[in-house]
Amino acid sequence: MRVCFRSSVQPALIDEYRRRHAAVWPEMLQALKDAGWNNYSLFLAPDGLLVGYVECDDFDSARARMALTEVNARWQAEMASLFENTEDPGQAPDEGFQVLEEVFNLDSQLAAAGSH
Amino acid sequence: MRVCFRSSVQPALIDEYRRRHAAVWPEMLQALKDAGWNNYSLFLAPDGLLVGYVECDDFDSARARMALTEVNARWQAEMASLFENTEDPGQAPDEGFQVLEEVFNLDSQLAAAGSH
Repeated sequence: MRVCFRSSVQPALIDEYRRRHAAVWPEMLQALKDAGWNNYSLFLAPDGLLVGYVECDDFDSARARMALTEVNARWQAEMASLFENTEDPGQAPDEGFQVLEEVFNLDSQLAAAGSH
Repeated sequence: MRVCFRSSVQPALIDEYRRRHAAVWPEMLQALKDAGWNNYSLFLAPDGLLVGYVECDDFDSARARMALTEVNARWQAEMASLFENTEDPGQAPDEGFQVLEEVFNLDSQLAAAGSH
């Protein structure tokens, strides 16, 4: 499955967010890979809209596998101050990711239309 | 390159947008494929935020190739009423797509970290 999620970075901290994500800890990178986060990218708009795209077997399972790692807890704690406040101040950034509905998939529809 | 863009669907017309995109014209699907729109998906949030994800050689070129097709002009004209008004009412929906900056790519950073 392919998953798109959104969150919000504080606009004043966009440069800081960009800087930190240009050099994510190797241990965090390896944890994501081991947890089955494939073809994973993050995109940022000037107003702070953050969009993630990832391919995985199941997003809840992929998140659960990351939640079991110690490095993810450390990473999310360090990033928390960069995000817009959520209703629950104790919530880690990755717990606040809002998943969007996939409404179009070119390859699926091409396959259904018989045009392989 | 991988590209993420955003636009805004009128919240009252989300169901209509979903319905039309569940069965895009086969001719439009083929035009996208022929124009090099790879692994292309669209995602929609309840507030009307529309996010596109596509892999292509170059996004400007991929858009230019679609702009040359007659089916894209017909498709965009039919979809225009579903989108939030832009500053330019004569603008087609796909001309209003706002590209987001890629700030993290797991595979690139894994490669740079030497963990293939």
